[in-house]
Order: sequence, then C-alpha cells, then structure tokens
Amino acid sequence: MSNLLSQIQSVEDLRKLPVSELPKLCGELRQFIIEQTAQHPGHLGSSLGVVELTVAIHYVFDTPNDKLIWDVGHQAYCHKILTGRKEQFRTNRSYQGISGFPRREESEYDAFGTGHSSTSVSAVLGMAVAAKMKGDMKCNHIAVIGDGAIGGGMAFEAMNQAPYRDVNMLVILNDNKMSIDKSTGAMSRYLLSITTSPAYNRFKSRLWNFFTFRTNHPNKVTNFFSKMGNSIKGWLFGGSNWFQSLGYRYFGPADGHDVIHLVKTLRDLKRLPGLKLFHVLTVKGKGLEAAEQNQTQYHAPGKFDPDTGKIICTEDKSQPAKYQDVFGNTILEIARKDEKIVGITPAMLTGCSLTIMDAVYPDRVFDVGIAEQHAVTFAAGLATEGYIPFCNIYSSFLQRGYDQVIHDVALQKLPVIFCIDRAGLVGEDGATHQGSFDLAFLRCIPDLIIASPYNEHELRNLMVTAYHNAKNHGLPFVIRYPRGRGVLTDWHNDPQVLPIGKGRMLREGERVLLLTLGPLGNIVQKVLDKLSTEGIHPAHYDMRFLKPLDEKTLEEFTSKYSVWITVEDGTEKGGLFSEVAEFLENHSFSNQLLHIALPDRFISHGDIPHLYKEVGFDEESITRKVRQAWQG
Amino acid sequence: MSNLLSQIQSVEDLRKLPVSELPKLCGELRQFIIEQTAQHPGHLGSSLGVVELTVAIHYVFDTPNDKLIWDVGHQAYCHKILTGRKEQFRTNRSYQGISGFPRREESEYDAFGTGHSSTSVSAVLGMAVAAKMKGDMKCNHIAVIGDGAIGGGMAFEAMNQAPYRDVNMLVILNDNKMSIDKSTGAMSRYLLSITTSPAYNRFKSRLWNFFTFRTNHPNKVTNFFSKMGNSIKGWLFGGSNWFQSLGYRYFGPADGHDVIHLVKTLRDLKRLPGLKLFHVLTVKGKGLEAAEQNQTQYHAPGKFDPDTGKIICTEDKSQPAKYQDVFGNTILEIARKDEKIVGITPAMLTGCSLTIMDAVYPDRVFDVGIAEQHAVTFAAGLATEGYIPFCNIYSSFLQRGYDQVIHDVALQKLPVIFCIDRAGLVGEDGATHQGSFDLAFLRCIPDLIIASPYNEHELRNLMVTAYHNAKNHGLPFVIRYPRGRGVLTDWHNDPQVLPIGKGRMLREGERVLLLTLGPLGNIVQKVLDKLSTEGIHPAHYDMRFLKPLDEKTLEEFTSKYSVWITVEDGTEKGGLFSEVAEFLENHSFSNQLLHIALPDRFISHGDIPHLYKEVGFDEESITRKVRQAWQG
Repeated sequence: MSNLLSQIQSVEDLRKLPVSELPKLCGELRQFIIEQTAQHPGHLGSSLGVVELTVAIHYVFDTPNDKLIWDVGHQAYCHKILTGRKEQFRTNRSYQGISGFPRREESEYDAFGTGHSSTSVSAVLGMAVAAKMKGDMKCNHIAVIGDGAIGGGMAFEAMNQAPYRDVNMLVILNDNKMSIDKSTGAMSRYLLSITTSPAYNRFKSRLWNFFTFRTNHPNKVTNFFSKMGNSIKGWLFGGSNWFQSLGYRYFGPADGHDVIHLVKTLRDLKRLPGLKLFHVLTVKGKGLEAAEQNQTQYHAPGKFDPDTGKIICTEDKSQPAKYQDVFGNTILEIARKDEKIVGITPAMLTGCSLTIMDAVYPDRVFDVGIAEQHAVTFAAGLATEGYIPFCNIYSSFLQRGYDQVIHDVALQKLPVIFCIDRAGLVGEDGATHQGSFDLAFLRCIPDLIIASPYNEHELRNLMVTAYHNAKNHGLPFVIRYPRGRGVLTDWHNDPQVLPIGKGRMLREGERVLLLTLGPLGNIVQKVLDKLSTEGIHPAHYDMRFLKPLDEKTLEEFTSKYSVWITVEDGTEKGGLFSEVAEFLENHSFSNQLLHIALPDRFISHGDIPHLYKEVGFDEESITRKVRQAWQG
Repeated sequence: MSNLLSQIQSVEDLRKLPVSELPKLCGELRQFIIEQTAQHPGHLGSSLGVVELTVAIHYVFDTPNDKLIWDVGHQAYCHKILTGRKEQFRTNRSYQGISGFPRREESEYDAFGTGHSSTSVSAVLGMAVAAKMKGDMKCNHIAVIGDGAIGGGMAFEAMNQAPYRDVNMLVILNDNKMSIDKSTGAMSRYLLSITTSPAYNRFKSRLWNFFTFRTNHPNKVTNFFSKMGNSIKGWLFGGSNWFQSLGYRYFGPADGHDVIHLVKTLRDLKRLPGLKLFHVLTVKGKGLEAAEQNQTQYHAPGKFDPDTGKIICTEDKSQPAKYQDVFGNTILEIARKDEKIVGITPAMLTGCSLTIMDAVYPDRVFDVGIAEQHAVTFAAGLATEGYIPFCNIYSSFLQRGYDQVIHDVALQKLPVIFCIDRAGLVGEDGATHQGSFDLAFLRCIPDLIIASPYNEHELRNLMVTAYHNAKNHGLPFVIRYPRGRGVLTDWHNDPQVLPIGKGRMLREGERVLLLTLGPLGNIVQKVLDKLSTEGIHPAHYDMRFLKPLDEKTLEEFTSKYSVWITVEDGTEKGGLFSEVAEFLENHSFSNQLLHIALPDRFISHGDIPHLYKEVGFDEESITRKVRQAWQG
C-alpha cells in the first residue's frame, strides 16, 4: 500500500494532510479502488469519477456532524474507504461483508441509506429542516446527486420544496452526462449547454472569481457580491437560471478532478449560508482509460485487469444466456413482425438489453431516463393510440411506478406489457434492489395478468402470449423474470401462444404436489430427480401464471395430492402462497399447504448461493422440505 | 335554460358560434355549473376557473381527433358539458351516473382518464410520439395542467423528456396559485415572479405582440420571430427561462378569463408546430364571489345556494366528528407535549385537517405540495434527526410514495408514522380515489406495523401508541382510517397506549367468529345486535392490527370457533383475509374461513350506501353472510 493512504484510517487523518498532498492521495485512492474492484467486482466507473470530490468534501466539511448523502450510493466507495472501512473494503458487496451502498447501520458517516435514485435531496432537506428547528444554522447538509438522478421526479419534488424552507443546504450536481447509459432528457441537454457555452468559457475565470470568491469572509459584502455574481452569471451564460429561477445560488461548473480547486470552492461555499447548488463536471471511470472510453460497460465491469483495465472474460460459450438477452432478442423478433411494438426503459437500456432492439429500431425504443412513473404512463399513452409497449422495469424500481400501473394502466385496461427484470433475489446489490415484493404488490391490482417463466423458452412463449393478448385488445400483462442466466443451452425456440391462466404439469407424482412459479422450478426439478432415487415421487406443476389463478386445475389437484408446497422467489406475504391459501380457504379444501418463499424481512447483499441457502431456496433446503412433506 | 347553451349539444355546435358570442356562452356555462353543482355537489372551484379555457380549446382545436388531457380531471365539468354530457351532468358523481373525472369509457373526448395529479404530460407525450411514428404531424396534443400539479415529480419527468422527442405538443399551464390549498414550492413562487415582474408588465403588450404574434403564418419568419421573441422575453423578464431552458417555447402569461384573446392565441399556437408551453392565469372559483374569496372551502363545497354561494350547512351538531378532524386534534394534543412532533402532508393540509396543528405550530407543519414521494423521504430525513413525523397521505395517493415507504423508511427502520386517510371506499370520487389497496401493498413490507381503528377513540389510542413506539426507537407505524364521519358522539377520550399486535374482544359468542379490522366493525356490531334476537351469537374480535398478527389469540380461537369471517374495507387479495388464511395454512388449522372484503375489481363512484350494498358491506349483506355461517 502506498504512502499517504496507508496513514489514513479516518477523516481526521485526512484533515491533517496539507492541501498540496491531496492530489497524490487521490491518485492512491483511485489505484486502491481499481485494484480492489478488479478482484471484487462492483460499481467502478461512478466511484472513480468522484474521488476528488469525495476527498474534498470530507476534507472541508465536518462529517459526520455535517450530513452527507450520496444519491444512488454506488459512487460511495471512496467515501467508505475514507470513513474507516478501508480494511473491510475487500468484502464489498460480498455475503456478510460491507454493502455496495451507504447504509446507516454500517457507519455514522452514512447519513442516509441509498440505492434507488433521486432520494438524496428529500432526505437531506429533512435533516436540514430538523437542524433549523433545533436552532442549528451551522450544520451543513450536502446531497451529491448525478445529472441522471436529478431528472428523477422525486428529486425535482425536493428541489422544488427546498427553496421554500430557509435552510442550510448544498446540492452538489455531479455532472458526468451519464446514468448507466447516456443521460437523456432536456435537463441533461441543458446542462451540456451551460458547460459548452462560449460565454461561460470567456468569462469564467474573470467574473466567476471576481464576483463570487474575491472576498473570503461571510459578511454582507460577500453576500452582495455572490448575489451579483450569480445574477450576472445567469444573465451572461443564459443557463444557470434554471436553478436560480427555483431559488438556488448556482456555482459552477467546476472541474471535478481538480481537488485543490474543489477544496477552495467548498470552503467558500461552507461559509455561505443558505441554499446552494454546486455544479461539478466529472468523468465517469476517470483514471482508468478503458473505463473512460467505455463508460457503460465499466459502470460495473465485473473482474478486470487492474493495469490494463481489460475485462476478464469469464464468459463460457456453453453457459446459458441471460434472461435479459433473451428478452432483448425476443422483443426484436416481435418488433420485426409488427411495427406497433415499442420498447420503453427508464434508464436501463443496456441492463435490460433493449440495446438489441435499439440497434435496429432506434425510433421505437425509448430510454426515458430515471423516470419510472413517466415510463409507465408514457407507455399507457402510446397504448391508447394502438401501439403495444413492452415497458421493461426492474422489480424494485417498479415500486416507483406503482400508482401508474394501477391508475393509468390497469384501471383503463390498456394493453401495456410489463417485463419485470431483476425479479426475486438479485444478489450483490442487496436489500435496496431485491425484487421481493412485485408479486404481492401487483396481485391485488384488478385485471392484471401476472406470469413468470420457468425458463428462457417460457419467457419467449409468455412474451408472444402477452403480445397476442395485447393485439386482441386484452388486459395489461406482467412477465417477471430474474437477474442473470437462464438454464438452457439454447434459448431459441419457436415461441407459442399459451392459454392465459393455465399452467403445465412438469412431473406426475403422488401425494405431494409442488406448485412453482418461475425459474425456481428448475431447482425443484433437480431435487425431485434426486428424491426419486429414494422412492419419493411428488408431482410438480409449473403455475406459469399467478393471476388469473388456474382454479380448475387446482380443484382437480385437491383430491389427488394431500400436501401442496408453493415455491416462488418473492415474499411469503401476498404472492403465490397467499393466492393458493385463499383458494383453499375459499373452497374449504383441507389440503395441507406449505410454502417456500422469501421470509418477511429485508434480505441483505451477497452472492446468490449464500442468499439462497439463507432463505431456503438451495437444493438442500428444498430437499429437506419436500422429504418432510412426503414423510408427513 | 338560457339561449346559447341550449343550442350546444356537441363541440360541433360550439364551433358554429361566432367568436363574439363566446363570452355570453361562457357566462351561461358558468351559471349552469353553479346551478348543477349547488344541487349535486362536486369540484366547483377548479371547474369554474377553466370555463373560458375549455371553450377556447374546443373552439379552436379539432377534438376528439386532437387529443386533450385534463390533469387531475376535477376541472373537466365544462369539458363534459360541451362534449355531449350536458343532460347527464345532473348525475355527476352519483351512483351509476357520470364520473367526476374524465374516463375513456365515458366519451371519446376523454382522451385519457385522470384523477390523480401530474399524469397528463406523460400520457399526452405518449400520444404525440404515437402520432409522430404514424407520420401525423398535424394532430395536436394538449395537456392542461395546474401550477400545483406541475410540481409533482412525474410531471417533471415528462416535461424533461418531451423536448427530447420532436413532437407536436402544447402544455397549457393553468396557473391559479392553488392546489386545494395554496400551492407551495419554488415553482409556484417562480410563476408568481413572472406574472408580477415590472419588466413583464412594461414590455408585455409591445414586445409580446410584436415578436410572437405579429405574423400569423407558420413559416420561417414566424419561427424566427417566435424564437427571438421568446429569447428576448426570457432575457427581459428573467423568468420564462425555466421552461425555455428545458426546450419549450414559452407563451404567456395570458388572462385565462378573456375567451376571445384565448381563442386568438390558441389559433396562433395551433399553427406553430413543436413543443409549446402556454401559461394561463385563472382564478379558482371565478364568477361566484364566495368561491373566489374562499378558494379552499369552495374547491368542493357540498351543497350551496347558487345565487349567494352560501354553503348549505347540513352539519348536525349531534353528528360524529370526521376522522380527519379527530386526527387533526389529536396530533395537536401530542404536539403540545412533545416539540419533536411534526406533521407532513402532500397538498392535503385542509383535507386531512393538519390545519388544526398548523394554526398553532406553523413551523412544525409541512405542506410539501403534490409530492408524495418527497413527503415520505422528507419524513424519513426528519426521523433520522430525532423528530417524529406524522406523515398524512390519502390511501390512493400513497401508491405514489410506495417505493419510499419500502426503501427510505422501512428498510432503514425509521420511526415515521403514516396516517393513511381516505382508506377503504371513498364514494363519489370513484375508482381513482378508492383506498382499496393499501392493506395489501403494505402488508408485504417487513417491519411495518399496520393498524386500523374501530372508532375515533381507537384512532386516538393508536396515534398515541404509534407516538410511544416512535419515541422508544421503534418501527414505522401505519394507521389507516376512512373518509368521513366516525361513529361516536364524543370523540374525546384519554388516549391509551395499546399493546402492539393485540386486538380486543368486542363480543363473546360461540361457533362463529368475526375478525374485523377498522370501522366496518361497527356495522358488524349492529348486525350482531339484531342477530342475537334470533338466537345467533357469534363472537366479535377487533383485530386492531393487521401486522404483526395477533397469533397467540388466534391460536386460542381455533379451538373455540369453527367458522371465522374476516371483515375489512380493502381488497380481498392481500389484506386481512390473506393474512388469516396464511396463518391457518401455516399451522394446519382446519377452521373454515370466510371473508367480507372488496372484490377483485375496480369499484366505481357513487354514494357510500350504494357502494356498500354493491360490495356487500351493508347490514343486510353482512347479516346474510353471518346467518349462513351460523347455520353452517
């Protein structure tokens, strides 16, 4: 370990360094993050982009007394390393290791847990208002938010409220022109126009320095000049007005990789009370050339060579494809046949593999930015005009578009097809990203069709079924499938339209019946293979659909199988288990009902094998459960 | 009926009138709305405010081919009257009558159903993109959105996306400075600054007319002058830049009650392709003096005298208080004792009666505007600093803050107290506003405590219990209660801290057990009173809590009562019925389980007695159910 970083165990150590040493420290931190993340995969690009900003903030501000919130939070690696978690950093995102996101329970420096986007301004405003009520106008409240996240509706709600409260608050806009993919929307175009304005470049050094930071003491003169400076800058640059018109003092744009200048500016801003927005330009992946060149891929590159940046290809051609790629290829196939097919994603173009369709039909693919609410209702608008939108949203992010699914889609019976990626446990991203709740929160919505595929062929079948349903003016349709790889060596099939609300028998058997929804059924199949050698022969039925429930078939099963076990990768409260329990109670059937589902608690981060073992989704646990059921 | 309006059966008739007659027609329409709404209560103020705007839009644009969406939709009375629903208007909001909101199934002029705020721009953008894909650049797409609604996050998400698509779209900003209460937030302050700017007033007539509307044909000269005009206006007025910086051509502000000028301007705008924002100033309640003077009260005043505007007081002192007022008085009581108590509402200050605390502690009550997402996370931020927020949100609006309840509150175990008003059926507001789903979508969230009071005393007990729990660093706490009046003549009690997760026996009995959650229990009590005269004696247990479930007590009940009936004013999928069904299945108890709950379909509008009858919540239906259960 290099010289400076080895001396830094805490932010107190950091603050002892002379400013002149900070660039060196930043280099070491960057190197440390690269080396660690090369071995222990994580969110590389965004963390490399904010090394200088992180150092400058902790150097200048009195964290943890001053409150610092990292929006989204995947860029907080440097923050974690500087706040006492350097040694633990090697456990980043691993089972029982530290989280890849800030968490209040992990450190007092993590003022607010994040994971989903655009929450930071609301939370820090709550803290700032609290400080004000306590009469503490010295405490600083800092939200660091990206140019992608600031386009999210809830960030705007908070940005809109803050000027209405007289608080001490600094919003640092980390502008790298990227979400995971390129940022979209008027705001990002607007930010670009500020930063490339010739007026800005001409006057920057002169006016900026003169008006804003000439006098370095917080008195009326400073305030006057600051105000003057801001107003003149807004006037000249024809841009900063967006924030100013809302009531923010706008500062910037500043070079986010000049740590000495950042320290100087933040010191000035610290002395300036009230509401400020500091616009900082950073480069995602800064310092690792490969990551700078290919920012989307290096957002979370997996393992790579720390020297060259070359990604270590663990791809094995014989491995099954990812579900997301099967989705991406299949929507393209359907889109080729019907020009009414459109694809919508809220900022997960690459993550959900809509890139595949985008490459062929860019005019029919809409990356609407980090805007789940808009994504859903925009899809509804398209559906009113005869288009058939596949709206792809990750399970935990659909929580953001919940009202819109009810109010704008289901209530109006519009044939929007929701493809819910990252359903069930997602692994290393942890509690904020687990797709645990979608079955429960969607099942209560009238008229929704809800399905989950057993494997890649079934995903394709369901997509074609949903399309067929939409085309015939049907109801909204939900298909949920997990993160990661499928189970087949060849996902190609000739997809079939399935009967809605009907499952399929995977294995005849006796006494015990397994009712599975989704790909966990594959683990069940393996278990039953093995148990058959012990003379244990339960039946296995793939539900395919959670809603409408396959009541007729289930009724037939009541007399054939005395013990039923539902299996689903969702919470035990409100999903398949509940649906079947309700069915049995409604008809006074006395079959015994067991379940395998996520327990009613938040599931933390870690690799899938560990998590599956923890929640009882592994072969061993399922085997035990089935054997017990068999033995009665 | 007066002269002009009697000739208008459709928008075609409207378009035959000379412009000069429109002011007269507007007067008649206003009178018609006042007379009708005086008898058949509805959303008066907002509909009176947009009479001229509605007439001008339908006069100028080719609806329904041109798409028109009314954000929120409660201001669409004039729209309904002009589009073939004049005769039916007397059935407005009544059972099986027309809806108080636009609905696609009601008319082809209702391009998109609304009810919740801030959806219009997303939906109309979807339609505009659809038109573009079809190669139709002539079709106009119009969203009318208020200054309150445009502060909602999803409106911003859409506003941010629209300039990124090359579409034909007009956003009409209906600026009346009001939500139901006064609009809050930087945006509304900003809009005020535009409209009161001296620069604006000085240059308005000259520059505005000169640059924007001088040449009346859509060629390059117009475009040039429009752009010039806009840019100069932005520059001079130091304001219009907010929209312009996003990429909108900004026009206005215009007098929203000058119908002739509105027609002229809309004709100009119709000729101008692309993305436009037209800022119109209106007065909520326009034309009825009492309504103009007291805009919050006349948002939905109930019955009133159409001549004087005087509200017909149907208040009977002996009637029970409204739940919302019991909430409002009780939070004030708790707030008096503990300065850490704060109240938060997203734009429902009056509706949830936080006005009562606001009158005493204005600095501790936060109306954050139409911003449910922000409301929840702002509460979380306050909770991290030792404050105890009561966050009051209507059930159907909490669907907007769902992710935040999971991700920012429950996951971080922050003691935010959610008071969910308007839970269960709300009546006349209909399907968009029924509080049907909260029990289901909240029950699946780990660590949430979920309760519902039987009556006003219980509401107070639960609020004190939640406070006590929060103070002792407990978990987030949900209390859900219905719209409207309670059941007690005197709500005052000395509120008690209740044991969490414990219900109470209301009536001993035999064989049959009613498990009720919330105020429907009162109807059950009446039913059981009557049935007791027939010798039918079921037991009645008030669950109080949905979560954690009172398992110990239920276990005791399994041997005492063979037939159980759950009763809840929420969907049958995912709430109390599911919880109890899961309990019975988990422990293999063979008690028979019946349920009384909302059926799995959207429930339309109407008065509560009719709706209760429809869904089986009335005394007769419950009596029948209990009697059958008793008779086995």
